[in-house]
Amino acid sequence: MTTLPIALLIDLTGTFVFALSGAMLAVRRRLDVFGIAVLSMVAAMAGGMIRDALLGATPAAALSDPRYLWCTLAAAVVGFFGHRQIERLSQPVMVLDALGLGFFAVSGCTKALSFGLAPVPAILLGVLTGVGGGALRDLLVAEVPRVLREEVYALAACLGAAVVVLGAMIGLPAAPVAVTGVTLTVAIRILSVRLGWHLPRAPGS
Amino acid sequence: MTTLPIALLIDLTGTFVFALSGAMLAVRRRLDVFGIAVLSMVAAMAGGMIRDALLGATPAAALSDPRYLWCTLAAAVVGFFGHRQIERLSQPVMVLDALGLGFFAVSGCTKALSFGLAPVPAILLGVLTGVGGGALRDLLVAEVPRVLREEVYALAACLGAAVVVLGAMIGLPAAPVAVTGVTLTVAIRILSVRLGWHLPRAPGS
Amino acid sequence: MTTLPIALLIDLTGTFVFALSGAMLAVRRRLDVFGIAVLSMVAAMAGGMIRDALLGATPAAALSDPRYLWCTLAAAVVGFFGHRQIERLSQPVMVLDALGLGFFAVSGCTKALSFGLAPVPAILLGVLTGVGGGALRDLLVAEVPRVLREEVYALAACLGAAVVVLGAMIGLPAAPVAVTGVTLTVAIRILSVRLGWHLPRAPGS
Repeated sequence: MTTLPIALLIDLTGTFVFALSGAMLAVRRRLDVFGIAVLSMVAAMAGGMIRDALLGATPAAALSDPRYLWCTLAAAVVGFFGHRQIERLSQPVMVLDALGLGFFAVSGCTKALSFGLAPVPAILLGVLTGVGGGALRDLLVAEVPRVLREEVYALAACLGAAVVVLGAMIGLPAAPVAVTGVTLTVAIRILSVRLGWHLPRAPGS
Repeated sequence: MTTLPIALLIDLTGTFVFALSGAMLAVRRRLDVFGIAVLSMVAAMAGGMIRDALLGATPAAALSDPRYLWCTLAAAVVGFFGHRQIERLSQPVMVLDALGLGFFAVSGCTKALSFGLAPVPAILLGVLTGVGGGALRDLLVAEVPRVLREEVYALAACLGAAVVVLGAMIGLPAAPVAVTGVTLTVAIRILSVRLGWHLPRAPGS
Repeated sequence: MTTLPIALLIDLTGTFVFALSGAMLAVRRRLDVFGIAVLSMVAAMAGGMIRDALLGATPAAALSDPRYLWCTLAAAVVGFFGHRQIERLSQPVMVLDALGLGFFAVSGCTKALSFGLAPVPAILLGVLTGVGGGALRDLLVAEVPRVLREEVYALAACLGAAVVVLGAMIGLPAAPVAVTGVTLTVAIRILSVRLGWHLPRAPGS
């Protein structure tokens, strides 16, 4: 068994869960099999492609490494045949989206640091990687993206990416830091929905 | 007469027809002359710009080679003055869009192969190049993009791009392979609309 | 005091005013504090990121230089606390958007020339830089972007960018040319709204 570097493993896991969120949304909207594949790809690949285009890490990983596409298509197939089982879970699109948000916020931030970005821009790119695919997925089916509609979304990605930056500054090993970052983002995001957390609005708005 | 390389010729033809689809849509929506120019440019250039940003083929061809802009503006002028004649054709936006889809799927896939991408990611980039401009064009006028709304769209681009990859693997000459790929995509796309082909939906969705 | 190069100063000013336009729009839509930050960033950074990805000027300036992020967040804070004061101005989102359009059209065109683009593609990239952030901002809150909806918008950006190109061709000093370009774009844009200027539609449309 070859060992996958932790960054790639996190990226591919995020790809799979985001692709599954796209597939589930496409099935709900009664799109055909190619619409399901397209929405899976958009959800799974757009965030990473934006990240790579902005970093100049080209050709983008989703294109230069075929494993991203296999992960995405596997998720589309799982969504196509298994959507009834998955729908029985509580709010599956939200949970899958939260997982993807966590994995991609961490992978985006990690890659940004490896390209020499300063801490705060690295967090920004982590957030962008995390929210990009989901925002485009929602736009394509004419929904206002979650990142704007829901209270604690970009904040959750931001905190997960901040863990990665802090870990790198202190010099902690990458793997446990990444796991902590993903867990923090996913936990905050899911708890915020379940418990109805709110962020302040502008005074008098 | 200088001879245009086949890849450039295909790219410029796709640019022209996609630009004309954007111009026709803009006229229908009663946009002014600059709105027509903008929607033509978006339809004609966005797919190729996404392709070039993801490949790292920068500055993007649509910027480094002024012929792309001239093709686009020529199409906008044709749409501005000739829209009544063009509207008399049967479903002109759909047909122009199908032509653009074919030319760009082939050009995107060809460029991806020349940058050393593996076969399947090259097909993916071909599809992305083909559907990107049209999707953004539709989003800008608040329509759900055809790539999601219509049954056989991404599939048609996928098959045209697959022809290019197969041709390159077998070692066939580029020009007839490209023409075959374009023709296949356009034919499948138009026939699917005319004959009402359907793709399967997820079981029980 | 260190002196900022004129191009950076223009870029950062554009970042601030576009970010403020995003913050004001987010407050109007009653988004929470993170939604305000997100819409500010999208409005302020998307145009420049598209410019840098297409030029291959990576990592994008908004990521490699933290000052872009500070400008954006400062504008979000100003919008959060000062929105009632700003709303008292006449059409604040339109005016802020016009200022951002002018600054970014000039900065995009200047950067394009410095990367060796031909005059007309440089104008095109200036327009794209100017309209990109605002278009994405509007799309995210499900509005048809101003660049399509309003009469004189892309045209104003185009003329400002053309001033930069002409100035560079004649060999005039950069600073007064840039100021002239920004002023021209902003003046045309605001006057066109105030005086209700119209552009021609396609004959018989």
